[in-house]
Parts: sequence; C-alpha cells; structure tokens
Amino acid sequence: MRPTLQDIQKAAQRIAPLIHRTPVLSSISINHIAGAELHFKCENFQKAGAFKMRGAANAVLSLSDEEARRGVATHSSGNHGQALAKAAQSRGIKAYIVMPETAPTVKKKAVEGYGAEVVICKPTLQAREDTLKDVVKRTGANFIHPYNDERVICGQGTAALELIEEVSEFDIVMSPVGGGGLLSGTAITTTALLPKASIIAGEPEGADDAYRSLQAGAIVPSENPKTIADGLLTSLGDKTFPIIKELVSEIITVNDEEIMYALRLIWERMKIIVEPSCAVPLAAVLQQKEKFAGKKVGIILTGGNVDLDKLSAKF
Amino acid sequence: MRPTLQDIQKAAQRIAPLIHRTPVLSSISINHIAGAELHFKCENFQKAGAFKMRGAANAVLSLSDEEARRGVATHSSGNHGQALAKAAQSRGIKAYIVMPETAPTVKKKAVEGYGAEVVICKPTLQAREDTLKDVVKRTGANFIHPYNDERVICGQGTAALELIEEVSEFDIVMSPVGGGGLLSGTAITTTALLPKASIIAGEPEGADDAYRSLQAGAIVPSENPKTIADGLLTSLGDKTFPIIKELVSEIITVNDEEIMYALRLIWERMKIIVEPSCAVPLAAVLQQKEKFAGKKVGIILTGGNVDLDKLSAKF
Repeated sequence: MRPTLQDIQKAAQRIAPLIHRTPVLSSISINHIAGAELHFKCENFQKAGAFKMRGAANAVLSLSDEEARRGVATHSSGNHGQALAKAAQSRGIKAYIVMPETAPTVKKKAVEGYGAEVVICKPTLQAREDTLKDVVKRTGANFIHPYNDERVICGQGTAALELIEEVSEFDIVMSPVGGGGLLSGTAITTTALLPKASIIAGEPEGADDAYRSLQAGAIVPSENPKTIADGLLTSLGDKTFPIIKELVSEIITVNDEEIMYALRLIWERMKIIVEPSCAVPLAAVLQQKEKFAGKKVGIILTGGNVDLDKLSAKF
Repeated sequence: MRPTLQDIQKAAQRIAPLIHRTPVLSSISINHIAGAELHFKCENFQKAGAFKMRGAANAVLSLSDEEARRGVATHSSGNHGQALAKAAQSRGIKAYIVMPETAPTVKKKAVEGYGAEVVICKPTLQAREDTLKDVVKRTGANFIHPYNDERVICGQGTAALELIEEVSEFDIVMSPVGGGGLLSGTAITTTALLPKASIIAGEPEGADDAYRSLQAGAIVPSENPKTIADGLLTSLGDKTFPIIKELVSEIITVNDEEIMYALRLIWERMKIIVEPSCAVPLAAVLQQKEKFAGKKVGIILTGGNVDLDKLSAKF
C-alpha cells in the first residue's frame, strides 16, 4: 500500500525520541545569488549525520516485539547502514550490516561503534545480495532496504513535514534523488500539505536513472553510475518509482562541476558541512534561474558525512 | 575606564539590530572524547562570519552623529575590516580599510562589497600605521582599533553574555586569545555573572605572547608569530592586558598539530565550518583532560571565514 500523509505523521510521532528536529537555515547571500528565497532543512545535523536516521528509526520502531527480537539487516556501507545500526542500538536489538571488503575501515568502525555486526562480502552486487540472504536465513533478521520500503519512505517524508511546519507555504519543495526514498516521502508530504506546490528533484548527470526513468515511463537502472555526489549512485525501486512518477513535476540533472560550485557556496556562505549530494538541488536552481526566480523554495540538505581527506582535494 | 558588565549589557542592546543571536551547539561525541560537557557559542554563524561584528557594531553605533559623519577607519585585512565595513554600511557612513598590497583579492572585494573604501599600503607594520594616520588626517575618520578599544571590548563581551544567558551555569568559560579583545570582554562578563567560574584561554604556541606576558607581568609582544590559527597572530594591547592579567585564570598553549586535530573534530562531528582559531580552546581541553574532566565548559567559536583552497591542503 502506498504510504499516505497520515502514515508519515504517525512515523513522525514514532521516531521523535530517536531523531533531532533539525534547524531550517537561510543565507541572504545565497538568496541573492540564486534570485530566489531558499530555505534549507539541515539534515546534516541529524543523528548519525543524515536524514537516513528517519527512515531507519521508523522501520526499526515499526517492528513488532517478536520481529524485533530477531534484529535487522541491510547492505549499505553508507548512511543507511550507520543509521540502521544506531536505530537498532536504541531499541536494544541486533543489527547486521553487510559491507564489501573494500569499504573504508572508518565506515566499518562507525557501524561497529553503534554495536552492530559487520558482515564482510566480496565487492560485487551478487556477493552483497547473497551474503545478505545468508544473514537473514541464519538469523531471521528483518531486511530493511535503504529506500525501497514503505516504512523507510514514511520516515524520510518526516523531514519535509518539519520543513513545511516551520516555514509554512512554499512554491517549490526540492530534494536530490538517488534510490528515491527521500524524494517519494517528500513528494507525499508536500502534495498533501501544499497541493499548489511543485516538487522538483535534482539528480547528477552521471547517475541520471530517475530522469531517464521518468522519460521512459518505466524504471531504467543506472549502469556504472559515476558522480561526486556518491550518496546518489543507486537507482529507483519499484516502490519509489510510481510515487515519483505521479507526484514529482520535474527532475533537473546537473554535472559534477555544478555540484561542486553549489557545494562550495553552502560551505562558504552558510558555514556548514554538507555532503556533495546535498548540493544537487541548489545546483539545479542555479542552472535554471528563470524557473526559480522570486520563488519560495524548500530544499532538504541530506547529510554531512564527508571524507575530508578525499573531498578536500576536489576544492 | 575599564568596561563593566553594565557597559557590555548596554552594548548588547545597542548592537541587537545589527547582529545575529547565534546558536549554542553541543556534540555528544566530542563530549565523550573530551570527558567534559562542552557548549559551543557559534559565532561562525555571526554576520560577516565572525564575532568581530559585535565589537565593530558597538564602536560604530557608539559614535555621536557628528563623529559618525566623518566615517571610520582601521587597518585589518581580516574579520575586523569586514565587520567594520558592514557595520558602517548599516549606519550609512563611510569606512576606510587599510590593507597591504599583498592581501588576497577576495578580501579586498569582500570589504568593497560592503561599500567601504580600500586603501592599499606596502606590506610592513610601519607602512600600515603611516597610511592609517594619513587616512585619518585627510578624512577625519574615527580610528577603530581591532581590539585595543573599550567599545570593541564591550561588543565582544556580548557573546559570553548570550552564552551564559542560554546555558546558565558554567565551571569554565573559554575563548582563544590573539589581541585579547574577545578574551577581555568574555572575562568581564563571566566574572560578573558567574563569580565562581574560571576563565581559561587557549593560545597557539607559535604566537604565545599572552602566555609570556602573563608570566612576565608585562606585555611581551610576539616576534614573527607563526601558526595555522591566523586570526591569533596579534599581540595584547595596553587596554586588554590589564583585564586579562586580573581576570583570566590561565592560558594554555597548543601547537598546530593539536589545533588541526581539534579543528577536524569540530568539522566532522558538529558539521560546521569554523576557522582554525576556533579550535584552539578545544585543543587546550584535549591537551589537559584532567583539568576539565566532568566540568561544564562554555567555548566561544570565533568565526567561519576560511580559505577552503588553502586550508583543504592541510587536512
């Protein structure tokens, strides 16, 4: 069943003890550059450093006591893995996080720091899925997909809920799109609360499966996606695509140079650390200024978990 | 006359329309690492990107209408120059900012962006002072020293005022020390409001004139100071030294490696962009953990104006 605003509102109540209500910030100088009124929902200040905490918390807290006893499992070396580990720790249940042997030690340690068990696999899609299946079979753990899961979609939709509660009216609400969990949750919330607002996503050119899927009217997965916005490499799933197809007005693609320019603006003008993925909607605004001119725009900044050593070299 | 708490409270009312009331942030993971309860006053989110806006605004707004008509002048290619330019713009008066010809173009442009007149000089102390004298003689502008000025000291003391209002009790209140404007203002506020609290400063080893001055009982200026914390190269003045001598419990010196470690912790764990100078008090806490163990500590983060290209290379 496709989630509704009511499901997202219930999720918001459910996860409240596990998440931060993050601030909404604006920058006079970025507004000046963009020629629009931008309000940024700062999920870089979220627990575990990203909006993924919302979906993971909702999934973990939606389990019955009996389900919860068997723990949760996922394959993610990124923010979802960390968030699921932290949410499981909060409920006092086990989390199994499948990671490729090539994942950076710091990511393994972060997940272990939340008390989760890291299960190492070969760095292929097949190995990842097989290993996850093994873990689930062996432990009975509940698989929590990073985005193709209604509980996760509802959790992610709570960020837009807070944003709209705080600022009220928007002409446009934006998020980046990777697997589509955040975008579909944002779209459901926004459509229900602000029926006149448009929902627009930003997507990296090097991982533009959502753009191409909307054009084709069917899911077209990315092949060898490559972008500096490494949180957006995943392709839409069968639960996120139909929501996006129905509710999202437009997907604007941007290249890595545009993303880095927007990222630098956010770092320098707003004095906050955000991931490259966060900068994708702002890059879209700057690319198509006429479309956004004078508009009141809400933008969800997804997270702040960056590898300073790697990223610094790109500035 | 040495400023009192009442002067600082008046300054707070005076400058309220020109400044942001900045947030106070904490990080569970940094508290865990430090073994203390740290509250960071985030002046990186201040207008013009640094606490210097407070002192500059108080100085500009303290001028009589007749004085104001002649404008203000200073020598500073850093945060004080920008802040003074912005404060002068807000009052609709002229600002003359003396800068060495070696100052980065971006800094000249920032000051000009606030409508100030940049006056270029040779890159020596003598040329800087001579040029400033010329400007003052020619225009009648009021010289606003970056720190050795009671109006500036009072403005800087308003950051601690807000910090203590928001969190109430502290065992220790900390700031970095360069010329001592922020530290002396912080010391006056803290001593008056929290007589039992200690005031401790952090100072870079490579610019440790305040540490040596306190040891000697007289001002010992830095010669060729050198540190990554480039906001702290200046030496104490005759207005800041006596306040610091009387009210500050201790100055802890830290080296550049300790500063960079602490800076990285703030960037990575708190997801905010701060200048290296900001990290000096945290570096002091981490160097002397026993002293701070279990204590409630307020720390003023001075600003967020960093040169990403230059700084990135040091991570």
